[in-house]
Amino acid sequence: MSGTNDRSGRPFNRENFESVLRRRFFFTESFEIYRTAPKWTGDNGGLFDYGPPGCALQANIVDLWRKHFVLEEDMLELDCTILTPEDVFKTSGHVDRFADWMCKDPVRGDYLRADHLVENALEARLKGDKAARGETVKTEGPTKDAKKAKTAVKDVKATKLDDATVTEFEEILAKIDNYDGDALGELIKRLDIRNPTGNGEVLPPVPFNLMFKSSIGPSSAAPIYLRPETAQGQFLNFRKLLEFNNNSMPFASASIGKSYRNEISPRAGLLRVREFLMAEVEHFVDPDGGKKHARFSEVEHIELTLLDRDTQLSGQTSLRTIAVGEAVKQKVIDNETLGYFLARTHLFLLRIGVDRTKLRFRQHMANEMAHYACDCWDAELQTSSGWIECVGCADRSAYDLTVHAKRTGEKLTVQERRPEPVEITEWVAVLEKKKLGPKFRKDAKAVESAVAALDQSSLETLQGSLKSDGSITIPAPDMGDGSGSASLTADLLTIEKVTRIEHTREYTPNVIEPSFGIGRILYSLLEHSYWYRGEDTARCVLSLPPAVAPTKVLLLPLSSNASFSPVIAKVSKSLRAMGVSSKVDSSGATIGKRYSRNDELGTPFGITVDFETLQKDTITLRERDSTKQVRASIDEILKAVKNLVDETETWTEVQKRLPEFTGQDTDETAS
Amino acid sequence: MSGTNDRSGRPFNRENFESVLRRRFFFTESFEIYRTAPKWTGDNGGLFDYGPPGCALQANIVDLWRKHFVLEEDMLELDCTILTPEDVFKTSGHVDRFADWMCKDPVRGDYLRADHLVENALEARLKGDKAARGETVKTEGPTKDAKKAKTAVKDVKATKLDDATVTEFEEILAKIDNYDGDALGELIKRLDIRNPTGNGEVLPPVPFNLMFKSSIGPSSAAPIYLRPETAQGQFLNFRKLLEFNNNSMPFASASIGKSYRNEISPRAGLLRVREFLMAEVEHFVDPDGGKKHARFSEVEHIELTLLDRDTQLSGQTSLRTIAVGEAVKQKVIDNETLGYFLARTHLFLLRIGVDRTKLRFRQHMANEMAHYACDCWDAELQTSSGWIECVGCADRSAYDLTVHAKRTGEKLTVQERRPEPVEITEWVAVLEKKKLGPKFRKDAKAVESAVAALDQSSLETLQGSLKSDGSITIPAPDMGDGSGSASLTADLLTIEKVTRIEHTREYTPNVIEPSFGIGRILYSLLEHSYWYRGEDTARCVLSLPPAVAPTKVLLLPLSSNASFSPVIAKVSKSLRAMGVSSKVDSSGATIGKRYSRNDELGTPFGITVDFETLQKDTITLRERDSTKQVRASIDEILKAVKNLVDETETWTEVQKRLPEFTGQDTDETAS
Repeated sequence: MSGTNDRSGRPFNRENFESVLRRRFFFTESFEIYRTAPKWTGDNGGLFDYGPPGCALQANIVDLWRKHFVLEEDMLELDCTILTPEDVFKTSGHVDRFADWMCKDPVRGDYLRADHLVENALEARLKGDKAARGETVKTEGPTKDAKKAKTAVKDVKATKLDDATVTEFEEILAKIDNYDGDALGELIKRLDIRNPTGNGEVLPPVPFNLMFKSSIGPSSAAPIYLRPETAQGQFLNFRKLLEFNNNSMPFASASIGKSYRNEISPRAGLLRVREFLMAEVEHFVDPDGGKKHARFSEVEHIELTLLDRDTQLSGQTSLRTIAVGEAVKQKVIDNETLGYFLARTHLFLLRIGVDRTKLRFRQHMANEMAHYACDCWDAELQTSSGWIECVGCADRSAYDLTVHAKRTGEKLTVQERRPEPVEITEWVAVLEKKKLGPKFRKDAKAVESAVAALDQSSLETLQGSLKSDGSITIPAPDMGDGSGSASLTADLLTIEKVTRIEHTREYTPNVIEPSFGIGRILYSLLEHSYWYRGEDTARCVLSLPPAVAPTKVLLLPLSSNASFSPVIAKVSKSLRAMGVSSKVDSSGATIGKRYSRNDELGTPFGITVDFETLQKDTITLRERDSTKQVRASIDEILKAVKNLVDETETWTEVQKRLPEFTGQDTDETAS
Repeated sequence: MSGTNDRSGRPFNRENFESVLRRRFFFTESFEIYRTAPKWTGDNGGLFDYGPPGCALQANIVDLWRKHFVLEEDMLELDCTILTPEDVFKTSGHVDRFADWMCKDPVRGDYLRADHLVENALEARLKGDKAARGETVKTEGPTKDAKKAKTAVKDVKATKLDDATVTEFEEILAKIDNYDGDALGELIKRLDIRNPTGNGEVLPPVPFNLMFKSSIGPSSAAPIYLRPETAQGQFLNFRKLLEFNNNSMPFASASIGKSYRNEISPRAGLLRVREFLMAEVEHFVDPDGGKKHARFSEVEHIELTLLDRDTQLSGQTSLRTIAVGEAVKQKVIDNETLGYFLARTHLFLLRIGVDRTKLRFRQHMANEMAHYACDCWDAELQTSSGWIECVGCADRSAYDLTVHAKRTGEKLTVQERRPEPVEITEWVAVLEKKKLGPKFRKDAKAVESAVAALDQSSLETLQGSLKSDGSITIPAPDMGDGSGSASLTADLLTIEKVTRIEHTREYTPNVIEPSFGIGRILYSLLEHSYWYRGEDTARCVLSLPPAVAPTKVLLLPLSSNASFSPVIAKVSKSLRAMGVSSKVDSSGATIGKRYSRNDELGTPFGITVDFETLQKDTITLRERDSTKQVRASIDEILKAVKNLVDETETWTEVQKRLPEFTGQDTDETAS
């Protein structure tokens, strides 16, 4: 069923895994009971509800994220609205460019994501080729990340391809994320790729904007969007944040909240959904001086597994492991700040329990990058569906602050007193304003902005023309006559080289943005945590670390005997006072069954109260992964639990100092 | 400016208060920099971003809410999607009935909320009357809750009314929430109420649905809404929740998340916004046996301030204070479970720092209730804008589970083994299915459901008719011919009295729902916490309790002297290990200025490191409200801080056991 192994090293059993998640209500498709109702439409997919354990797991991951990033680095947390007026996303480029390429099958009325269509078709053909050559066919390609839907690759038709075609297909797949709509359309046509359902020809790819649109206010006339990222709210508040930070740079803001993307083809599962929780940092940094980071030395020794841009463009997917300091030195990673956040991301993912052999950082290729990014590395986690992008770490340069400042006329810059004043010599254009009005009338403003938009090299050239010809023509997009240009004579405009002393420096900060998809991380973590005991697929375990486990301790009275209740209540209260979450299971099931149920919930520790407790005040403590138990006084056990949950003591250490207990049967299947 | 007093007993200074919130970035209007951009429209109002202190305050309130409700009572927390397909809200009644009444001014194009239009007009006339009688005119009505916009009441025109009119207007205002569209239209016409802007006549009220609508999927054909409450997701998951709870009743689910209402006229401020954070509990209870609650005895002594339905309908607004046990006994509050949650809500609000003299519980009048509720009490908090609904505690009966079960055909019921089997005698209709198909063909299913829908009294009557006439006609809404009825003859249908033994009982649980508007609570709490020192309005304080304060401890090096840094770092680390949040302020401002700044942020404690620290290892601890300080060893101070933050020791107690310190100047205005 999959290309990955589970925690115990056996092939990952997805069916069994999914059955655990369903049975224990980690999450479920939203509105599930409506799927049989008359008006249900397949369009409502890609939406999921988290049940109690999923909700607790999510809250714990978010809590650790906040501690690891926001508190550890004194980031300024914001909570901005999801609803965002059209003008903001028009300016940010999302209205025009936040789209996927979509093909319509005009006969069936199906809509298909163009890159997935190509990818699925080529993978199917490569498998057919292998089958024809008598090679073993895996359901997953061995190399390429498979974050795309595999809807159609069911029956592999054994058809041999020539070697050049195989190479070509493999190269296309390695850089599939780098194709734009025209290129995808060309591939679809040239390689005769059809709708896998019905085999019909599809229309050329068109862009489909991924934002949900609505309208606000009683007139229903004002368009508004659900944000596709939390970032814009942080950019719009930049000035207030800078003030809040006593005008000191660099600093970071952070937001945790829902975002929305109207995916063309969501998948069954948490990997491509339409409503999702994001946690994003916007780190504002001075672009001068190579984007250094003050704490880089703390992380430079950390080894990351990388798949860089050049490797992918050469049609390869080989990984390399390198210390982040070395990667920055070699310019594989562009700068210290980007490297710092990749390393911090790496540490966070390991902290919550991600398998480090299933973690890599992949660099985006040029066409793959979002319109706002100038460099981007994804932290990808390997799952049974391939490598999944879980964190994007983008260098957004000054893009967002610049476009919003331009649109609103607000200054989104930093002014810094220079240590020493500098002498700046530059070309300056001066308009004769008295003459400007009479000559250009309503277009005077348009001419002013056109002149203001001229850069140094244009000014230098124009200065020569003005001198020689006595007049110049410059681009002026806002002219009332629609000509797009304005002619200026030497009596209206002078261009001169001017020298001035500057005491302050003004610059637009660059932004490094680590952006976490919490749902994808949560799902991948669950896969990394899953295994089953011995050969018994009914005895599943989720080995979640205590830090993120939904419940830390399960409290079990041996039976329904009333005399156990006060002890359970007392232990429960002590744990609450320690800040350790616990659940009591006083159901009639056997101890073994109750332990097994909680193995599936990922509960790391179990405390049992039995008849010996009533006599000697001792309780037993069981560890989930080993199923081993120790027995000691209530106080000693509680202290051990606190240490284990805080990760100041390991289970092996606890086992060494507290006596083993072998009394109860824990060897039963969950129910 | 207002009808309330601040914490120090002086009239509430709203302007000054708002300036503190703005200055300290508690929150801000979203997209503020876009307000001057060319395409800005007033329609984009009612959306707010929380800055760092507002965000932390909100997180702390939510955290306490989770502890107080979810953890304390083992509630099952869910995180459901905000996007919800139309069919769900069609079934729940929201598509047809979740609306406010709106009047359009056809000349100006203004849209006005009808109830607010009436309320503002009558309040203005009553003020005019008072002015004419020479009485003092308050800007706020003394009695009525004023959660409505006061946009238009600016200039009071002194016009005397006759006594009967005054009484009538006062009565209308007391029950303004009880009028429907027709009644509001009648008032507007009879009392000649105009658009306050321009004095134009308005069209009769029409319903305006408050849900934001969008579409989902690439076809853009599937309508979807942003939820106006988190509740529906919890109802749809009822069966999974019941299973998760080992099929045991009663139990509660809970959700914390954003909801949306496209308000006709949002206000400037957090009191009526279009995107807001809610925290909702759905407590599922057996409707039989009077909705008792097992833990009611724990709260029955708690005294609540009530404004019941009858009092309001008689045109009064007088409050009474009564123990919740007594209120349930007197049937003022309908049942124990509702009473239990009112009391728990009361305790929660006091816990986070709400002023108990500014808290009341107001019962909804019949027409005021949401379409799903059979009883509802609002926890209202008094602010400078009047009494604000902050928590709604509704008895939704079996409404939601019933309608969703009916629509989807899924059983949303509880089956319970009866202690003793019961004998049940009832009318049973049996269809001759073999004959049904041939006779009704495609309508056979419609006839089946029509028969299944007949209740006991119908069956009894029909049984007589069938016997006497040989045939009957019954309502059958789904018949293909659109007739809405079906005729059945005695050979097709028999109706008989049948006795059976029932071992299990099946019922649809009722729902008690405490629903918290976190933003309104947060805003009201800030008002309740605000005051200023002495006569100096520039020296503002937010007396937030440590439990919710954004930052617990401010750490101050006396100056920028480098030798203070290691001590600050050490204290900061110790506090972090204790789980106490702190911030360092090493800016160049004086100690007094830095303290004042943090008084405005609501930081309850300040620790200063000075030269004596370097010699004697002592630090000072300052308490925000009293501005008093103590000095002791670092360890002693940290222990005191921990006690103060955990509220296990009061400041007065700390002052008694640790020596006072009077060295530093703390008497300065913030900047």
